[in-house]
Amino acid sequence: MMITAEAEHELIAGVLSAHGAPRPAADTQARWLVEADLRGVGSHGLQRLPVLVKRIERGLVVPGANPAVSWRTGSVLAVDGLRGFGPVAGLRAVELCVDRARRTGLALAAVGNANHLGILAPYVEAAADHGMVALAITTSEALVHPFGGRVAMIGTNPLAIAVPARPGPLVLDMATGEVSMGRILRHARSGQPIPPGWALDADGEPTTDPAAAAAISPFGGAKGSGLGLALEVLVATLTASALGRDVHGTLDADDACNKGDVFLVADPSTLPGGSRAGAVSAYLDAVRATPVQAGADAVRVPGDRARAERARRQRGGVEIPDQVWHEALELARGQPAASEAGSRGATPSAPGA
Amino acid sequence: MMITAEAEHELIAGVLSAHGAPRPAADTQARWLVEADLRGVGSHGLQRLPVLVKRIERGLVVPGANPAVSWRTGSVLAVDGLRGFGPVAGLRAVELCVDRARRTGLALAAVGNANHLGILAPYVEAAADHGMVALAITTSEALVHPFGGRVAMIGTNPLAIAVPARPGPLVLDMATGEVSMGRILRHARSGQPIPPGWALDADGEPTTDPAAAAAISPFGGAKGSGLGLALEVLVATLTASALGRDVHGTLDADDACNKGDVFLVADPSTLPGGSRAGAVSAYLDAVRATPVQAGADAVRVPGDRARAERARRQRGGVEIPDQVWHEALELARGQPAASEAGSRGATPSAPGA
Repeated sequence: MMITAEAEHELIAGVLSAHGAPRPAADTQARWLVEADLRGVGSHGLQRLPVLVKRIERGLVVPGANPAVSWRTGSVLAVDGLRGFGPVAGLRAVELCVDRARRTGLALAAVGNANHLGILAPYVEAAADHGMVALAITTSEALVHPFGGRVAMIGTNPLAIAVPARPGPLVLDMATGEVSMGRILRHARSGQPIPPGWALDADGEPTTDPAAAAAISPFGGAKGSGLGLALEVLVATLTASALGRDVHGTLDADDACNKGDVFLVADPSTLPGGSRAGAVSAYLDAVRATPVQAGADAVRVPGDRARAERARRQRGGVEIPDQVWHEALELARGQPAASEAGSRGATPSAPGA
Repeated sequence: MMITAEAEHELIAGVLSAHGAPRPAADTQARWLVEADLRGVGSHGLQRLPVLVKRIERGLVVPGANPAVSWRTGSVLAVDGLRGFGPVAGLRAVELCVDRARRTGLALAAVGNANHLGILAPYVEAAADHGMVALAITTSEALVHPFGGRVAMIGTNPLAIAVPARPGPLVLDMATGEVSMGRILRHARSGQPIPPGWALDADGEPTTDPAAAAAISPFGGAKGSGLGLALEVLVATLTASALGRDVHGTLDADDACNKGDVFLVADPSTLPGGSRAGAVSAYLDAVRATPVQAGADAVRVPGDRARAERARRQRGGVEIPDQVWHEALELARGQPAASEAGSRGATPSAPGA
């Protein structure tokens, strides 16, 4: 099914409104799902709507929640999401940090008790649009095994970084697992084996059978494992969120969401060098012009691919898998989220793809 | 040659003092080199002394420089290292940030015009010792090729993160290259080939010949490459430092050092959860107790290995390669750093091992 981003937005916002979301909250949440689909990250797009609706019905998501914000110091913000939509709490946190950083040069938001953030890139982009450097970090269910270990103990813990440049910022948005669980599930559906190095089975042995994958491997070996673990405890320290296997509620329809999110915003204009977007842009262009290795089509700067994918789908529309479209239409017609949501809830989707 | 850490410290501090360093600056710089050797990171230890002395003799390092610090806002510090020792500027920046973060919850230091920081871990440890979460990022000469590219365009750009825990903090300290240039050079000296995936030759082709290695590969493929690039532009944006192939002076004895350093310190006690060292420690112990894969001896938390190595050498002494010891003794006897320093300067050592 091919639809426009606008139609997808209206569909999602309509469903969420019908489930009690005030229109601004419904729009923000819809925008985050549509942005994921626009960038080709289907695991964080419309596919999430049935679980989201089920979570609303079960009181795990409170669609009208207005995040409680409190500046603990001049530059540290605590945000209690009050079980509301993740993007509502996250975007609010970023907007407040950007506003504050204009005066203080620096602001950090620690967000707890909010639901799944969705893709991270748009949060840091929102800060970079105002000339800010920004970081976003969030934790998630333990799906990744530590380097050398047999059992998943660490979230896929994505990290996003944006740095202002022209024509658009550098925007890194990467999970610290080698691959998303969503991608493993796609292999399972299509009957394709997964490459060695992606996952371990329930016994902690390497597997190429996607149906047997029980723990995703960390990206980049010991370094990636260490990074994911560092982000896990950094976020838990600042947000008082749960850790490791105690984290629940970003994927399922059964538990309150107890992960945490951290946003950091810094204003380069407060520093002696001022804006460096010109020098950074020239350097990034030189990186893009690096001669390519055999088999590589281009050297890309983080964010380039997402921008190209987004532009293509804004012109040509967003392709939605039939099953996802069918489920969304059922919801729009007022059918209960029903069993699809329940079963999807039990099947980890793809945080930080 | 096996010596005590104390003897190594006195040797280094004595040489630096004889070259005009005030004793406190000589002690700080000596401490950083000794810490590297204590942790088994020889590339950042005593081996660096001849280049450091040569840099002093050439005016590229000003050993008596007192960093110029200015708070640009209540939580953003600009530090001009005035060509002084990297650790003098870096430690000063961290100490000021820790002190400031006690009141503001958050502080960032942007350091420019300082020399090589040495190993990053001790900076973030210094903050974690005061209950703070800390990040340190520094840039370096372009030794790493972007993912898919044939030419080195990115520094080895290490990242350090410390989060308070018991008995000691989690301390991640990792470069964003797959391997350090120092390790490739050790293979070259011993005549061992390097594994596939470590490096490209001057034509941009994969090589297993350490002598032919011209560009280190990024760790973790596209993700590690993106992370290294993001850190490069983040640091350059905040510190107005040079970018990519324009970065010089962290390894050689020829150029002023124009990389930048960023430190971030956050005080968890300003947030609603307060100190989370108890919960974090319990989680890290659970991670350490993860059943291990075949071939792995243990699941380690970042910082565990360095602590163990350090304790072992504090008891049993630090082993210094004969050539490194010989050069250091020459310097201590008042011989000029001479040609060893010059030739070492032309041979990249190992940033962020």
